[in-house]
Amino acid sequence: MKIGIIGVGATKFGELWRYGIKDLLAESQLLALEDAGLSERDIDMIVTGNMCSSTFSGQSHLGSMASEILNINVPSIRVEAACASGSVAIRQGIHAINSGEADIVMVNGVEKMTDVQTRQATTGLMGAGDEEWEGTQGLTFCGLYAMMARAYMHKYSLTREQLALVSVKNHKHATLNPIAHFHNEITVDQVINSSIIADPLTLLDCSPITDGSASIILASEEVAKKCEKPVWIIGSGQANDTLSLHARKSLTEITATTQAVQRALLQAKIGIDKVDVTEVHDCFSIAEVMAIEDLGLIPRGEAGKIMEEGQTYFDGKIPINSCGGLKACGHPIGATGIKQAWEIVKQLRGEAGKRQVKGAQIGLTHNVGGTGSTVVVHVFSR
Amino acid sequence: MKIGIIGVGATKFGELWRYGIKDLLAESQLLALEDAGLSERDIDMIVTGNMCSSTFSGQSHLGSMASEILNINVPSIRVEAACASGSVAIRQGIHAINSGEADIVMVNGVEKMTDVQTRQATTGLMGAGDEEWEGTQGLTFCGLYAMMARAYMHKYSLTREQLALVSVKNHKHATLNPIAHFHNEITVDQVINSSIIADPLTLLDCSPITDGSASIILASEEVAKKCEKPVWIIGSGQANDTLSLHARKSLTEITATTQAVQRALLQAKIGIDKVDVTEVHDCFSIAEVMAIEDLGLIPRGEAGKIMEEGQTYFDGKIPINSCGGLKACGHPIGATGIKQAWEIVKQLRGEAGKRQVKGAQIGLTHNVGGTGSTVVVHVFSR
Repeated sequence: MKIGIIGVGATKFGELWRYGIKDLLAESQLLALEDAGLSERDIDMIVTGNMCSSTFSGQSHLGSMASEILNINVPSIRVEAACASGSVAIRQGIHAINSGEADIVMVNGVEKMTDVQTRQATTGLMGAGDEEWEGTQGLTFCGLYAMMARAYMHKYSLTREQLALVSVKNHKHATLNPIAHFHNEITVDQVINSSIIADPLTLLDCSPITDGSASIILASEEVAKKCEKPVWIIGSGQANDTLSLHARKSLTEITATTQAVQRALLQAKIGIDKVDVTEVHDCFSIAEVMAIEDLGLIPRGEAGKIMEEGQTYFDGKIPINSCGGLKACGHPIGATGIKQAWEIVKQLRGEAGKRQVKGAQIGLTHNVGGTGSTVVVHVFSR
Repeated sequence: MKIGIIGVGATKFGELWRYGIKDLLAESQLLALEDAGLSERDIDMIVTGNMCSSTFSGQSHLGSMASEILNINVPSIRVEAACASGSVAIRQGIHAINSGEADIVMVNGVEKMTDVQTRQATTGLMGAGDEEWEGTQGLTFCGLYAMMARAYMHKYSLTREQLALVSVKNHKHATLNPIAHFHNEITVDQVINSSIIADPLTLLDCSPITDGSASIILASEEVAKKCEKPVWIIGSGQANDTLSLHARKSLTEITATTQAVQRALLQAKIGIDKVDVTEVHDCFSIAEVMAIEDLGLIPRGEAGKIMEEGQTYFDGKIPINSCGGLKACGHPIGATGIKQAWEIVKQLRGEAGKRQVKGAQIGLTHNVGGTGSTVVVHVFSR
């Protein structure tokens, strides 16, 4: 059964000092309702993806916050799978519709991150990894990805300059996206010479601490086909792997990505070569490099060369992260998976403005929790 | 469609200094698999209910912890709805099965609470309520329920002695439950004269800080009917209300309970009078009083009299919280909803030992998040 996306909304992403978590959630929910032309009374269920509100805002129980904002009493829950919380929320909405429990589901992703010090944020985010066995050894979340970067660079002779191209491209894309956190272009030299965070990753290899919220409204096929411009979810796949990085067989590929994309494409009944526009999880530059290979978009080990050729720009052969990605659109953790769907909907509707991928018919999102412990892939069509 | 529960497992509840959250989760998952006679390879999906692991253990992303423990790569997620996290997790499992996504789902509830100071725990638990508008005013979670207790006692002339009977009865029940946190009987005088927490509630009106984990295995009707002793979920209802208490129309009833029980009974196609054994959410003594009235088990305002008559003991006319309830079995937040289902399964299988409700055929669980912001009711049959 196909699921339709009949409305989308997103706040500006950035350091939003005047917004609390409730303001963010309210704005994206109302924007999505407006986009869908629905009233809050049409919503049968709400699912909200969020990772850190307990730690960063002292506020759990966002399900009831989301329904209180809309003044409705429908079942409303929060789901969490670290940085994949948003996409996991979409899956629960799909299950509810396919089970007959709901016809129309509001799915939110939200994160308010700038109310705490960077040190607290870094500690909280390590909760996406294995706190007991890796966090207590002094590893930060950036440190885990730095080890993956080192291993990949060694195995496939990726140069430091090539790695930096991910951030350069994503900052370029963000200048074309009104909601993006950053609107400045950067150079390879700037990436390499910014502060070292966890060698070899520098500040400009890392996605920022961002506030933001995004919402999409899912509907059953019957409801959605009566709407003006539905975008269809034709495949949904999730795979999990170990929470800890040390238990993995490889540091240079993420097995859960290869499994999740297989599951999603099988459901969609298409090959990866049919995908026109892709949002991948670039929490760190190395993550985008691994993602495009794990998804099967390019042969393994060739990311460096393909990026040098400019193929991953929105007007290239394999458009990746046209919204600016986590790096430059920003990474409000729980919101990221929903914002990826938001961007694909914009692209497939032909509403992506200056970053429009011409003639895009099929889109794909790839959302990672932790170091690849949870991966969700969705496939979309016009 | 009916959903079968084909296996259950629970750790001892209590102050388990030698157990971390991973140990707790591992033990209940393995006990449930053993009870069902299944291998971990039979599980298609895992849902884990938990409220506070990010805050109390620095560990988010429990979905991947749960699947890593079992060494499987199936979709695994965490859901949170404050103290109703466990029952909300059950509902996501039901949706996944009814949507065709899974045949067999492991549903866990876990909380490791004793690794932090009581003050930190109290602050973290206020996240179940409205932190921004009520927590910052100095209200604790106990304080919110204390206001409800005052309002109820005033409106219905409930005496302090009558209120204390909830805890006296639940401690009695707990002495008959091997996994319970407390195994001591208490008296009305002891309840009234214990330390005041938030007037009129004293220490012995309040559920304790407890570690524990519980797991149940859900299966589709087709799979479950081949099993030896399935217990069936025949109704599931959830309703949400405002996160904040100040926005409610009444302090003496919980609207979300009346809505959730209506939805569950409608699905089960039975009346509340058919229920033989009930687990209600007694986070505070007053919560049990309100619950049995909101569920329609007794007429409004008559809880005091009915408790004085001893009708809510396991061998009375309206058996409530035969396991000892949150008060005396303990309240490891995320685990509570699953432990309620565990108890009903024990009762309906006739395996509840000295606390067995004779001839129990229909059971009901009532699980509350916050001050009634999320309520989930499930109805079970043999």
